[in-house]
Amino acid sequence: MSQFFGDIAPLTFDPDTTDLGFRHYNPDEMLMGKRMEDHLRFAVAYWHSFAWPGGDPFGGQTFERPWFNETMEGARLKADVAFEMFDILNAPFFCFHDADIRPEGATFAESEKNFREITDIFAKKMETSKTRLLWGTANLFSNRRFMAGAASNPDPDVYAWSAATVKLCMDATHALKGENYVLWGGREGYETLLNTDLKQEMDHMGRFLTMVVDYKHKIGFEGAILLEPKPQEPTKHQYDYDVSTVYGFLKRYGLENEVQVNIEQGHAILAGHSFEHEIAMANALGIFGSIDMNRNDYQSGWDTDQFPNNVPEIALAYYEILKGGGLGRGGTNFDAKLRRQSLDPEDLLASHAGAMDVCARGLKAAAAMLEDGALERAREARYEGWQREPAQSMLKMDLSEVAGLVAEGNIDPQPRSGRQEILENIVNRFV
Amino acid sequence: MSQFFGDIAPLTFDPDTTDLGFRHYNPDEMLMGKRMEDHLRFAVAYWHSFAWPGGDPFGGQTFERPWFNETMEGARLKADVAFEMFDILNAPFFCFHDADIRPEGATFAESEKNFREITDIFAKKMETSKTRLLWGTANLFSNRRFMAGAASNPDPDVYAWSAATVKLCMDATHALKGENYVLWGGREGYETLLNTDLKQEMDHMGRFLTMVVDYKHKIGFEGAILLEPKPQEPTKHQYDYDVSTVYGFLKRYGLENEVQVNIEQGHAILAGHSFEHEIAMANALGIFGSIDMNRNDYQSGWDTDQFPNNVPEIALAYYEILKGGGLGRGGTNFDAKLRRQSLDPEDLLASHAGAMDVCARGLKAAAAMLEDGALERAREARYEGWQREPAQSMLKMDLSEVAGLVAEGNIDPQPRSGRQEILENIVNRFV
Amino acid sequence: MSQFFGDIAPLTFDPDTTDLGFRHYNPDEMLMGKRMEDHLRFAVAYWHSFAWPGGDPFGGQTFERPWFNETMEGARLKADVAFEMFDILNAPFFCFHDADIRPEGATFAESEKNFREITDIFAKKMETSKTRLLWGTANLFSNRRFMAGAASNPDPDVYAWSAATVKLCMDATHALKGENYVLWGGREGYETLLNTDLKQEMDHMGRFLTMVVDYKHKIGFEGAILLEPKPQEPTKHQYDYDVSTVYGFLKRYGLENEVQVNIEQGHAILAGHSFEHEIAMANALGIFGSIDMNRNDYQSGWDTDQFPNNVPEIALAYYEILKGGGLGRGGTNFDAKLRRQSLDPEDLLASHAGAMDVCARGLKAAAAMLEDGALERAREARYEGWQREPAQSMLKMDLSEVAGLVAEGNIDPQPRSGRQEILENIVNRFV
Amino acid sequence: MSQFFGDIAPLTFDPDTTDLGFRHYNPDEMLMGKRMEDHLRFAVAYWHSFAWPGGDPFGGQTFERPWFNETMEGARLKADVAFEMFDILNAPFFCFHDADIRPEGATFAESEKNFREITDIFAKKMETSKTRLLWGTANLFSNRRFMAGAASNPDPDVYAWSAATVKLCMDATHALKGENYVLWGGREGYETLLNTDLKQEMDHMGRFLTMVVDYKHKIGFEGAILLEPKPQEPTKHQYDYDVSTVYGFLKRYGLENEVQVNIEQGHAILAGHSFEHEIAMANALGIFGSIDMNRNDYQSGWDTDQFPNNVPEIALAYYEILKGGGLGRGGTNFDAKLRRQSLDPEDLLASHAGAMDVCARGLKAAAAMLEDGALERAREARYEGWQREPAQSMLKMDLSEVAGLVAEGNIDPQPRSGRQEILENIVNRFV
Repeated sequence: MSQFFGDIAPLTFDPDTTDLGFRHYNPDEMLMGKRMEDHLRFAVAYWHSFAWPGGDPFGGQTFERPWFNETMEGARLKADVAFEMFDILNAPFFCFHDADIRPEGATFAESEKNFREITDIFAKKMETSKTRLLWGTANLFSNRRFMAGAASNPDPDVYAWSAATVKLCMDATHALKGENYVLWGGREGYETLLNTDLKQEMDHMGRFLTMVVDYKHKIGFEGAILLEPKPQEPTKHQYDYDVSTVYGFLKRYGLENEVQVNIEQGHAILAGHSFEHEIAMANALGIFGSIDMNRNDYQSGWDTDQFPNNVPEIALAYYEILKGGGLGRGGTNFDAKLRRQSLDPEDLLASHAGAMDVCARGLKAAAAMLEDGALERAREARYEGWQREPAQSMLKMDLSEVAGLVAEGNIDPQPRSGRQEILENIVNRFV
Repeated sequence: MSQFFGDIAPLTFDPDTTDLGFRHYNPDEMLMGKRMEDHLRFAVAYWHSFAWPGGDPFGGQTFERPWFNETMEGARLKADVAFEMFDILNAPFFCFHDADIRPEGATFAESEKNFREITDIFAKKMETSKTRLLWGTANLFSNRRFMAGAASNPDPDVYAWSAATVKLCMDATHALKGENYVLWGGREGYETLLNTDLKQEMDHMGRFLTMVVDYKHKIGFEGAILLEPKPQEPTKHQYDYDVSTVYGFLKRYGLENEVQVNIEQGHAILAGHSFEHEIAMANALGIFGSIDMNRNDYQSGWDTDQFPNNVPEIALAYYEILKGGGLGRGGTNFDAKLRRQSLDPEDLLASHAGAMDVCARGLKAAAAMLEDGALERAREARYEGWQREPAQSMLKMDLSEVAGLVAEGNIDPQPRSGRQEILENIVNRFV
Repeated sequence: MSQFFGDIAPLTFDPDTTDLGFRHYNPDEMLMGKRMEDHLRFAVAYWHSFAWPGGDPFGGQTFERPWFNETMEGARLKADVAFEMFDILNAPFFCFHDADIRPEGATFAESEKNFREITDIFAKKMETSKTRLLWGTANLFSNRRFMAGAASNPDPDVYAWSAATVKLCMDATHALKGENYVLWGGREGYETLLNTDLKQEMDHMGRFLTMVVDYKHKIGFEGAILLEPKPQEPTKHQYDYDVSTVYGFLKRYGLENEVQVNIEQGHAILAGHSFEHEIAMANALGIFGSIDMNRNDYQSGWDTDQFPNNVPEIALAYYEILKGGGLGRGGTNFDAKLRRQSLDPEDLLASHAGAMDVCARGLKAAAAMLEDGALERAREARYEGWQREPAQSMLKMDLSEVAGLVAEGNIDPQPRSGRQEILENIVNRFV
Repeated sequence: MSQFFGDIAPLTFDPDTTDLGFRHYNPDEMLMGKRMEDHLRFAVAYWHSFAWPGGDPFGGQTFERPWFNETMEGARLKADVAFEMFDILNAPFFCFHDADIRPEGATFAESEKNFREITDIFAKKMETSKTRLLWGTANLFSNRRFMAGAASNPDPDVYAWSAATVKLCMDATHALKGENYVLWGGREGYETLLNTDLKQEMDHMGRFLTMVVDYKHKIGFEGAILLEPKPQEPTKHQYDYDVSTVYGFLKRYGLENEVQVNIEQGHAILAGHSFEHEIAMANALGIFGSIDMNRNDYQSGWDTDQFPNNVPEIALAYYEILKGGGLGRGGTNFDAKLRRQSLDPEDLLASHAGAMDVCARGLKAAAAMLEDGALERAREARYEGWQREPAQSMLKMDLSEVAGLVAEGNIDPQPRSGRQEILENIVNRFV
C-alpha cells in the first residue's frame, strides 16, 4: 500500500453521514429495473486525478505528489495510488491516455516500452480489482510535436506518429477489455485561417478516423469508437465543434453508423449549448455514446472541468439519457479536476464522492420523472395534432398540395400555450 | 416622387468627397477581370430599411416614417421610397420578405391579395429600374401563429400555413426573376427542451425543405435555395445553428447538392465563429451561396445587425469568397439596420453608402492579396510535405501500415513555425 | 371580479400537492426566529405580469389580454386583475412603473392625470388587500423621448422631463407607503462612444441622483433609494454596470450612505458575475438593498428574465443575504416574465407559485447552512492567521517594516488546501 | 553578441519594404507637434518575449530558447538577447517582473540576490542602450505560494512575502529610473465565494496599496503607481475587475489621487468593454495612466494576448488617448505573446515590428481625426443645449423646481438623430 491516502477505508453508503462517504450513491439500489451502479457506470479519469500538476496559464504546479518525477518508478507508484483510490471509491471504471500513465521516452519505441510496462501492471491489478476500463485514448495534444494538430497536421510525419500512437492505445484498450475507445481532437483545428487548408485537414481527419474504424473491426474490438466534441481551447477553432458538427463530419465520411460521441458538459457549455441539449441531439441523430460528467463555470470562458454539483442540471442530463435508453456501453466519466488550491489527498476523495452523490440524486430524480410520466404526457399532447389527418398525409404531399389546404380556407392556426413554467415546476417536484 | 429623401441626386464615385457619396465604391473599376459591381452584387434589405420601426426589447418605435400605418396606401408609398433609394444608391439588388411589403390581412387570401398587388408594383418598377431581386423570402417568425416554429411547429396547421406562404413567396421570387430564394428559420428551434421533440421537428423541417427543392424544380426556378444559419435568438436554440450544423442537416435529408447557405456576419459571431470562418467552411463543404453583410457588436450578446465598418475584417471575408470563386449567383446583402437613434432619411443613405465603401475597400484589399500571392504561397509551403511520398501513399494505408512507418524509426516529427504574426503582417500591407 | 382567472381560490400550502399551490412556501413557518413571509417579502412585478405583450426582437404580441388597449378602461381592468392575482398568490408586495399602470397621455399633464387616477385606485384597493408596495419607479426608457438617455440625455429637456416623472413617481410611492424607490438607468449609457461625453453624462446623473436623495428627505420618505445595476441592454454600455461600478459612482458623488442597490440575478449574469457575488459584494461595500429574483439563461446573451427555478443557486443567494442580516426593507421582487409562448392565465399563476416555492426551498437551505455553521467555521479557520501576531501588527506597518519580517528569514509561506469541493459537498447536504 | 537573432541589422523605416522593417513607424515624424516615438512610447514585455515557454492548458513548452534552464547563466544570456532585441527594434522602453529575469532561489534572500545581479546587468546595459524602463512589477501569481492571492491571501505570511517582493521591485524600478510601477492583481480575487471573506480581502488590498503609495513617496520615486484591471483569469473573479471597479476601490481607500490604471486591451474585452471605452472611462474619472497594447480574440473566452493588428480599433484607442492629453509618463507596452506555434526568432521580431506599424497607423489616423475636428464638432453640437438656459440653471435646481419647468408646459422633448453611422463613416475616412 502506498499510504498516500493514509488508512482510509472504502467509502460506503450511509444517508446520514457527514463524513467522507456516500449519502445518495447506493450501488445496489434498483431504479427502473436496474442497479444504480449499472445505470451510472462511474469512471475515474487518470489524467486529472493523478497526472495534472495544478498549473494554469498564470501559475505553475501546486500539487506535490510523490510520483511527479517523470520516471518509471513514479509511474508505478502512480498506478498503485490510482487503484487504491478506485478501491476506496468502489469505482466500477477508469479511463486513461497513454501520456497519463508513462513517462515520455526519447523515441517512440521507448515511449511504447514504458507504456506497455504500465498497461501490464494495470492488467495485473485488474485481476483482483473490480474496476474495469471504460475507455482508453491517446494524448495527441500535449507534446510539442502535436502543436499544429495530429491527424490534421500539415506535416505528414505527425499524421504517421499519431496513427502509431492510436494503434498502440487501441491495442492496449482491447487487451484490457475496454468498453470504448475515445478520440478527442484537442489540436484538430486551427489558430488562424491564414495558414490553414480546412478542406485538406478535414479530409485527412476523415481518412484517419476511417483507419481507426477499420482497425477496430480488424482486431475484433467490440467497444464503441467515440469522438468527443469541443468547440475551441486549446485551438481557436476545433473541427469537432459540437454534436451536430460531428454528425455532419461523420456523414461526410460515411462513418455515422460506426462512430458515436462522448459528450462533456463543459464542452457543451463552451459551444453555447446545455449539456442536456447535446445529449438529446445525439440521441435524435443516433450517435449518443457516453458522457464526461463535469461542470463548467458559466462565468469563465474556458474549460474549467469542475466536479459536478448542481443536481437539477444533472437530473435533466440523465433524463435525456434514460429517455434514450440509458448509457449502454458508455459511462459517466468524471473528466473533472480538483481546483488547484485543493491540495490534499482528502480533496481527491471528497470531490469524487460528492460527484457520485449528486449524480445519484440526479439519476433518481430523472427516473422518478420518467416513471411519473407527466412530462412525457405533456410533450405528446403538444404534438398530438400530427397523429391525425390531414397532418399524416401532409408529410407526403408536395408544396402545392399543402398550400392548397390553406387556400381552401379551413386552416387558421391558433397558438396554444407552451407551458414552459408549468413543466419547470413539474421538474422541481423531483429535483 | 415621394420627396422622402428631398432632392438628393444619385450618389456618385469621388475619391475625395466628404459629402454623401462613394469614396471607394466605383462600380466599373476592374478587379481580377471583373467589374467591382459584379463582384460585390450589393443588395438593400427591405425589412430593416423600410419596415423596422426602431424598437428594442426596452423601447418602442423611434422612427416616424409616413408609411408606418399598416395600410395598402402605406405599402405603396413604402415601395416608392424603396425604389427611390435604390436609384440614389445605384443598388443592383434588393431583398424582401412578404411581411415587409404588405399589411397582414384578416385571412390568408387577403394577405395574398395585398402581397400580389405590391409585387406587381415591384415588377412594374423593375421595368425601368436597374435594381433586380437578389432573393425573396417568407417571414415565418413575426406573427404569433409562428411563435412555436414554422415547419417545425407542433401544430400541423402552422406547417401548412408555412408551406402556403413559402409557395407564394417562391412564386413571386420566380416571377420577379430573383437570383435566389432564402429560408431563415428564426423560430425553427426551441425555448425549452422540456416540451420539444427534437427528432420529429427536424424530420418535419427536412421534409419541408425537400418540398421546397422539389417545387423549385417543378416551376423551373433556376435560383439557388439558401438556408441562413443562426445559433439562437429569437429562440434559445435554432436548428440551423451554423454552417457545419446546416451541412449535417442537409446530408441527413439528402439535400447537400440542392441547398446552400446564406451566411451572415452577425450570426457567425453569435455562433462563436468569425465571418471568414463560416465562409471558408461553406466553401470547404461545397455549400457556399451568398452573404448577409453586417457587423455584430462583440460586446453585445444579441444580433445587433449594424452596418459593416471594419475594413480589415471585411477584407478577410472577401478573401475567402474570392478564393472560393466569388459570389456567383449570391450577393452582398446589407442585412443591417440603422441604430434606433439614427432618425433621419440622411442616416439611411449614409449608412448604406458607408457600407458600400468599406466593402469596396475590403474587396480591393482581398483581390490585391490574392494577386500578390504571398499568403497562398505560404499556405502551400506549409502543406507541401503531403505532396511527397510516403505521404501520398499513407492516405491509402491502413492503421497498422502507417504505424509501421514509425516503428521503422525513421519518423520523428520536427515542429515548424506557423508564422501567424508574419502572415498577419502581410495582410496589414493590404488592408 | 374580472373573471380573468376564472374561479381559482387563493393558493395554499400543501406539501403534497401536484396542483396549483405551494409545496414549500409556508408563510408562517419560522426560520431563524422570523416568519418565512417576513424573510422573503415577495413582490409581483406589474410590468411583466400585466403590461408585457409577449413580443421579442423578431416577433410581436402573443398575449391577448382584455386590457391591452391603451385606454383608461383597460388600465382599470388591469388593476382589478392585478389585485386579484395578488390575492390568489397571497403576495405581500408588488412593484410598478408609471408606464405600466396608465396609458401615455398627449401631454405630461394628461399622463399625470391618468397616473393619479390609477394610483388612487391602488390606494383604495390597498385598504382591503394585504398587499403593500415594495417599490415604485419611473419608466424612463420605453418612450422614444428617452432613446438617448434620461438624466444623462444630451438634451436638457429630457433631463427636465425625467425629473418631473421621477417626482411624480416618488410622490405616489410615498403616498402608497412604498418601502423603497428604485431607479433603473436602462438608457443611461451609450450606443457609441463617438457621440458621447462620458464625463458630462455621469456628472448629470450624479446631480440628478442628488436631487432625488434631497427630495426624499424633503418629503419625509423613509424608504430606501435604490439603483439597479445592469451592464448593457438596451444600450451597448450602461453606467450602472454592476455593484462595484455603482459603488464607485456613489462615492464619486458622495451618495454612498444615501443610496443602495437593487440587484437582479439576470443583470449579474450579464455582467459576468454570479448572483451571490453581487449580493456579497454589496454587503461588503455596505450598499445592499433589495433583489430582483429571476433567472437568466446562461446560453443567451441577453436579459431573459425567466422565473427562478434552480434551488442550489437560489440557496447561495439567500445565504449571502442572511449572512448580511436579511432583506431589511428590501424584498424578493419577481422581475420575471412568462415565456412568450405561455399564453394562459394559469401560466401566470403557476410561474409565480413555482418561483415562490423554489425561493422558499432556497431560503430554508440557506438558513439550515447558517445554523449548521460548518461553512462559516471553515471560512474563519482559513483566515485565522490574521487574528494572531504579527499579522495584526502588520496591518499597521509600512512596506519596509513588513519586508523586514521576511528579511529576518522566519517567513516562508506554506500553501494550505482551499477545500472548495469539500465546501461544495457541504452545500449539497442542504440543497 | 548572443547570435540568437543572427546578423539582423536594426530595423529601419521604409514605407515600401516587404522585408522585416517599419512601413509606418517613423520615430521622428511629427504629429500634433510631437515626435511619433514620443507619442507612442513603445515598450517590450520581458515576460512574453523572453520567459514564456509556449505552453497552454493542454500542452507544454514549444519554444526552445537556449536560456530556458533556470540558471543564472541562462538569466544572463536572456538579458543579452533582450537588449539585442531592444536595439534591433529601436525600442524606447521595456517592462519586467522580478520572476522574468532571474531564477527563483531556495529562499527569499537567494531570489533577491539573483534578482539584484540581473538588475545590475540591466543598469550597465542601459548606460549604452537607448532603451529605458517603462515600468517594473512583481510577479505575485506564478509561484504556488500565491495560489490564494498576494495582498489578499488568507495567510498573513503571504502578505508579508508580497510586501517584501514589491519593495524589492520598487527599489529596482527606482534605481533603473523607471517611469512607472505597476501592480497586476492576478490572484487578488477568489475561486469560490464559499471560502472567501470579500471585505477582509479588499481591506487588506487597500492597506497594501496604501503602503506602496507611502513607500513611493518615502523613497522619492516620481513615477506613477498603476493598477492593471482584469475581470478574471486566472481567478474566477478578480477584485480589479475593470476601470470603474478600480476607481471605486481607490475611492474607498482614499487613493484616487495617488494611483492610476494601466489598461490592457485584452482585459477590457474580457470585462465586456471595448479598449477605447476603458481609456475614455479612465480619462473621465481622472485615473488614466498607461496601456498594454495587445489584442484579444473575440471568439476565445480567455486572455489571448495577441499582438495588435486591427488598425481601425487601434485608431479609436489612440483617439481617446490623444483627446485626454496623450500618454504622459505612460507608454504602449506590448503585453503580447507569440502564438505558441511561432517558433522562430524571426517571429519575435516580425510580431513586434508589425505591432509597431499598426500602432503608428492608428496614431496617425487618430491625430488626423482630431485635427480634422469633424467628430468633436458633432459631439459638441449634440450637447449644445446644455450651454444655454435654462439648462445651466437646472443643474442647480432641486427636483421640484425642475419638475416645475415641465409643469409649466413649455417642455416637450423632441428626439434628434444620434447619427452613429455618419460618425462611423467619418472615422473610416481616416483609418
